[in-house]
Amino acid sequence: MLTKAEILWLRGLRERRNRLAERKFVVEGEKLVRDLVQARYPLEAVFATDAFQADVPVRRVSEGEMARISHFPSPSPVLAVGRIAERAWDASRLNSGLTLALDGIQDPGNVGTLLRIADWFGLAQVLLSPDCADVFSQKTINASMGSFARVATHVVDLPEALAAARVPVLGCDLAGDDVHALKPETAAIVVIGGEGRGLSAGVQARLTRRITIPRRGRAESLNAAVAAGIVLDQLSR
Amino acid sequence: MLTKAEILWLRGLRERRNRLAERKFVVEGEKLVRDLVQARYPLEAVFATDAFQADVPVRRVSEGEMARISHFPSPSPVLAVGRIAERAWDASRLNSGLTLALDGIQDPGNVGTLLRIADWFGLAQVLLSPDCADVFSQKTINASMGSFARVATHVVDLPEALAAARVPVLGCDLAGDDVHALKPETAAIVVIGGEGRGLSAGVQARLTRRITIPRRGRAESLNAAVAAGIVLDQLSR
Repeated sequence: MLTKAEILWLRGLRERRNRLAERKFVVEGEKLVRDLVQARYPLEAVFATDAFQADVPVRRVSEGEMARISHFPSPSPVLAVGRIAERAWDASRLNSGLTLALDGIQDPGNVGTLLRIADWFGLAQVLLSPDCADVFSQKTINASMGSFARVATHVVDLPEALAAARVPVLGCDLAGDDVHALKPETAAIVVIGGEGRGLSAGVQARLTRRITIPRRGRAESLNAAVAAGIVLDQLSR
Repeated sequence: MLTKAEILWLRGLRERRNRLAERKFVVEGEKLVRDLVQARYPLEAVFATDAFQADVPVRRVSEGEMARISHFPSPSPVLAVGRIAERAWDASRLNSGLTLALDGIQDPGNVGTLLRIADWFGLAQVLLSPDCADVFSQKTINASMGSFARVATHVVDLPEALAAARVPVLGCDLAGDDVHALKPETAAIVVIGGEGRGLSAGVQARLTRRITIPRRGRAESLNAAVAAGIVLDQLSR
């Protein structure tokens, strides 16, 4: 049995401000929760109906209760509350390895897909400007296919963070050097702007180079995640 | 004033079977409709509220009527009915230029993004297996950002179509040759499978080569559209 206070608390985690205040978030779905358990991700609690075969301690709830706490119209049999790790931001970390920096990517599906790409290419970290979609929203978590838990993410003042970098800062733009001219880099920062808005003025002032993916057809732009994939593939070949 | 029959007809176009039977579909949103008009795409009718500044003949409707015919909870001021072009399938077209073939991509957002990528790289055509998401659904049209109207699409029996090809048939897979070993090709077919299911057996039997994008991190897979973007970028450099 869940108390009324618990139900309110779990529903409250749908709101970004509550997630930020409590440093907690909700994950739903058997595959995602099992992945987190396997990765020993810090979990506050796991709620499950009898349909979930648990190999971790769970609070059993009825299907009716799950329907009340789930963030989805069709609830899965399991819902976990994770803790958002407190990682102090250390600007020197920018100077080794590849970093992806997201500048105003507001679509949570895009942010999730970008985290998955960062995870695929083995990036150590992803930086997000404060106006990006929240990493810990359901849509981002689901689109990331679990990668949100494997890649370190930091919400930072991007122009300030980039100013401290001692490695190339490459901005993806519709006009710039051909991406194929880039040499593989062991350390660099790739900055991707929001679709439609592009890179913000503060970020543009910090770029060491603008790069572009040559267009051969007529589409006005390329999806932000696809552009990031092509650039990271080029840098890590 | 719309008649009751017109309202039923427009609402009916939300269903794929009606779109297929009538060879018509609905497009909503000012930018998309203006793009279609500019591209001289064959339109059956355009319905608009007074909020839409029209440079083509439109049927004026009230906001209440628009709310009834729109496929969205927040209707835009304009809704157009387009005609699906009847293009006879000619297998010889596979033998020039780059072709993208989608094998069981069921997510309409992914299909739309893939059409946008095909458009960016200037591909002549995209083939879809019958179990792909419909090109003319609202979600696909919106994700394609208008590219659905600029790239020729054909729903075909993929194994049969690929059997007739005289050019390399490259299948994206988790195991295969490194994509970076591919030389630029003026004519080739790139086949992308559905996430989670991969390429179907019938398609696998028709591949001349399997290719993969090297993974350096821990994500289980790469988004289908991102993989297609990386491969097409490699082939068209």
